Amino acid sequence: MAKTYPPYGCPFRYATSVIGDRWTLLILRDMVFKDFRSFGEFHRAGEGISTNILADRLARLVAAGMVTKSPDPASASKLQYRLTAKAHDFIPVLFEIALWSARHDDRSDFPGPLLTRIQTDRDGFLQEIIARSTDTATPPV
Amino acid sequence: MAKTYPPYGCPFRYATSVIGDRWTLLILRDMVFKDFRSFGEFHRAGEGISTNILADRLARLVAAGMVTKSPDPASASKLQYRLTAKAHDFIPVLFEIALWSARHDDRSDFPGPLLTRIQTDRDGFLQEIIARSTDTATPPV
Repeated sequence: MAKTYPPYGCPFRYATSVIGDRWTLLILRDMVFKDFRSFGEFHRAGEGISTNILADRLARLVAAGMVTKSPDPASASKLQYRLTAKAHDFIPVLFEIALWSARHDDRSDFPGPLLTRIQTDRDGFLQEIIARSTDTATPPV
Repeated sequence: MAKTYPPYGCPFRYATSVIGDRWTLLILRDMVFKDFRSFGEFHRAGEGISTNILADRLARLVAAGMVTKSPDPASASKLQYRLTAKAHDFIPVLFEIALWSARHDDRSDFPGPLLTRIQTDRDGFLQEIIARSTDTATPPV
């Protein structure tokens, strides 16, 4: 993500300008599939991300309109990160990546029940994720 | 792609280990949507990729089982690159990225007719791309 190039025109160039970084994709994964919302949750996710890289990638996601940052209603001194509609529209990309990896990486650890939901009830699963991620009353998992 | 990390387990980590590089994604784009097959075609694609980066990314795609490299039947002195079944299975990811970018990047230049095919005849379009990419009699576009 260090190089600059026109982030427009080609959809794949555009997509990599927004999520073309493994950390960014892992943050989105944790927001979509684990309902993580706080800096601490992302940091503790066990991927070994440093706090400065995490802060940078969250700021990029906010700048790209994929994530909002706001005070946590449950604790005014904390911030929460939430998926935007633009990020919700990106979830089918994550679904397809999960299906592809499950098929071609025999060490894939993507939870079987989630894979089954994608395969058999994609739209219902998508709507469930969107509802959960926008429901301010639902605490993080 | 310079850093090493376990390329297994999480599907998104796995996917970025295989295609987590903007050049790699652009090469796949040109193979899938433009039926490009030769080093020269990739190099002339107008994205400004250097020959050494192109050679490296093609070698990585071959190593990852996404692309095969073989003598061109039309010209024995040339090499051709072809998509594997593993790469065919990745095409739905490219479809979803194209749909997402068309929706959220108002400068998206993805051809409208291709977008319509994805929206209205996804399976037919997928099978057409696979058939074209595996048909040795079909010359590159």
